[in-house]
Amino acid sequence: MAADFYPVILAGGRGTRFWPLSRRKRAKQLLALDGKQTMIQQTVARLLPLAPSGRFWVVTNADLRPEVLRQLPRLRAEQVIAEPLGRNTAPAIGLAAFILKARDPNAVLGLFPSDHVIGDRERFLAVLREGIEIAAAGENIVVLGIQPSRAETGYGYIEVGARSPANAWRVRRFTEKPNLEQAAEFLRRGNFFWNSGMFLWSARTLASALTEHLPKTASLLAQIAADFGTKHFAATLRRLYGKCENISVDYGLIEPRSAKGEQAANIFCLRGDFGWNDLGSWTSLHEHRTAKSTPPDGNLISGRGIFSLNASRNYVHAPEKFVAVVGVSDVVVVETDDALLVTSRENAQDVGKIVKYLDEKNLTKLV
Amino acid sequence: MAADFYPVILAGGRGTRFWPLSRRKRAKQLLALDGKQTMIQQTVARLLPLAPSGRFWVVTNADLRPEVLRQLPRLRAEQVIAEPLGRNTAPAIGLAAFILKARDPNAVLGLFPSDHVIGDRERFLAVLREGIEIAAAGENIVVLGIQPSRAETGYGYIEVGARSPANAWRVRRFTEKPNLEQAAEFLRRGNFFWNSGMFLWSARTLASALTEHLPKTASLLAQIAADFGTKHFAATLRRLYGKCENISVDYGLIEPRSAKGEQAANIFCLRGDFGWNDLGSWTSLHEHRTAKSTPPDGNLISGRGIFSLNASRNYVHAPEKFVAVVGVSDVVVVETDDALLVTSRENAQDVGKIVKYLDEKNLTKLV
Repeated sequence: MAADFYPVILAGGRGTRFWPLSRRKRAKQLLALDGKQTMIQQTVARLLPLAPSGRFWVVTNADLRPEVLRQLPRLRAEQVIAEPLGRNTAPAIGLAAFILKARDPNAVLGLFPSDHVIGDRERFLAVLREGIEIAAAGENIVVLGIQPSRAETGYGYIEVGARSPANAWRVRRFTEKPNLEQAAEFLRRGNFFWNSGMFLWSARTLASALTEHLPKTASLLAQIAADFGTKHFAATLRRLYGKCENISVDYGLIEPRSAKGEQAANIFCLRGDFGWNDLGSWTSLHEHRTAKSTPPDGNLISGRGIFSLNASRNYVHAPEKFVAVVGVSDVVVVETDDALLVTSRENAQDVGKIVKYLDEKNLTKLV
Repeated sequence: MAADFYPVILAGGRGTRFWPLSRRKRAKQLLALDGKQTMIQQTVARLLPLAPSGRFWVVTNADLRPEVLRQLPRLRAEQVIAEPLGRNTAPAIGLAAFILKARDPNAVLGLFPSDHVIGDRERFLAVLREGIEIAAAGENIVVLGIQPSRAETGYGYIEVGARSPANAWRVRRFTEKPNLEQAAEFLRRGNFFWNSGMFLWSARTLASALTEHLPKTASLLAQIAADFGTKHFAATLRRLYGKCENISVDYGLIEPRSAKGEQAANIFCLRGDFGWNDLGSWTSLHEHRTAKSTPPDGNLISGRGIFSLNASRNYVHAPEKFVAVVGVSDVVVVETDDALLVTSRENAQDVGKIVKYLDEKNLTKLV
């Protein structure tokens, strides 16, 4: 099947667990957490072999849009859409589907978070090529699943049934974040994958799934899409987008579709065995980066100069300072111009609570 | 006995264990670690009821002298002596003894570190008044001992014999820093005090002890003292002081004197039960300050704003920043313009090793 691939990159999140580095106008995806390029730059760069830059879409918000455009100079302004109000993933990719359905009958869309790392780019591209082929072949939905390596309670899971083509399984159902007992059971049973949040489908399939399962939202998106490329687009977007249902692809489209049964649903899971990491916290960034560089003491310290003694597995970020780490382990310290975070590898997932507090106290300069 | 009391304050140390706050030109005694006044300002203030400001001597070095004078505006320039080269405590107080011996036959000198805290100032003054009386009464040396509260291996110990007047004991001998087993034994036996480094004696007694036990140094100090108040003083000091023996009062004067036997030596130990703390590290500062203010979680955080969650017994100093401490305990983090220290309460005594490293690497801006 002929397929024109369009990556849709979701870049509206805040990534509050990377506070104090991540801020409202400089969210996680706009930070160079791992290498010289920012997360969104890496996301675009690794997809460029599959689509020319003119086919990319980025969905973000008004706070972040200027910096997104600055970081992605090859994208035209109209390719970077600012949601007037975050409505979760279903309307975000749905809008692209309605815009493209009318313009390119061969359009296959891929939904990608903008803040994940992929260790093996070649393998990533190979899996995507396979997925694009499946998506182009009919009314299929393709989801990339990650083989679980631990009983993680922070992710959604995909339960799969029969193995279909080479690297793919038919999806039985999506499961919300489980408790620890369930997660351990999933791990034991073996036919469960983590939901990576990456999906593939044709514009046609996605638009008809929206019309079937979220008809009100589909109608609003069709109206907005009709004005794309005209001078009315911005106003129509602002007027109608906020009326869309605030719902994810998983709940709004996949769950009702999978209710049709494993065979009829035509949802396929591809194994994403390409070194995926969603960098959920300072701790997972630390783990990801030490796995690559394997420093002998497990410390990852950025400073103008460094001294460490009897210290291990610490993450310290203070690039403008001389950093000394003495007799301490498993600590995370991150410094910016106006803030200092002190936490532990074990509890770094609670960093988002700081941002919640700062929001509540209207300490807007700090978020 | 008539006694004119002259406090001699030793302010030549670096206090490297308070890096990165303490620096070559801003040593520990010049920092406001506990309250608004700096350590040396507190040292002077608490002694003022016993001596007018004109009777104070401060012995420091050329790096620190300008800041000492700035912090102690009531002292005349000649009262603040810069050692051309650090020669430990015996020459430092010995010089004052030789200068005063000729000028005031009633002079009693007290030797005081400039970087300790005293919790109970009234009790401190009462103990000193008693000590000054003993020192003025004859060829006596008075040392202030601290009742040990733990088997500390970081201090020298004073072994005492017979109880002499009310609050005093005759000293048997001084003991160097013990190992843990010895320290536990000292604690058990009960007739051991910690050496606080505070001594009292008449100028006459001290000068004759120097002449007896350190004759070469005594002769050099006498020559320097002869030029005090003349335009030659600075040059003579520079020329001769470095030739003095590099030796402490304890080793150079007390140890040989105590060899005469408990009765003949006339060394007396007064119990310094006035809430003494030498603030040997960030950890002891933390302990001292939380003992006073008893915050419920034991955190001591200075920041422009503070958020803490599931965090206890941490010391964080970043007064210009919003500080967030999440899910971490017993950590010490200190930030300055150019440096960031991350250590633990348990290992903060190793902070001095950072300064040693910086010295070796000639990273002079950081020390």
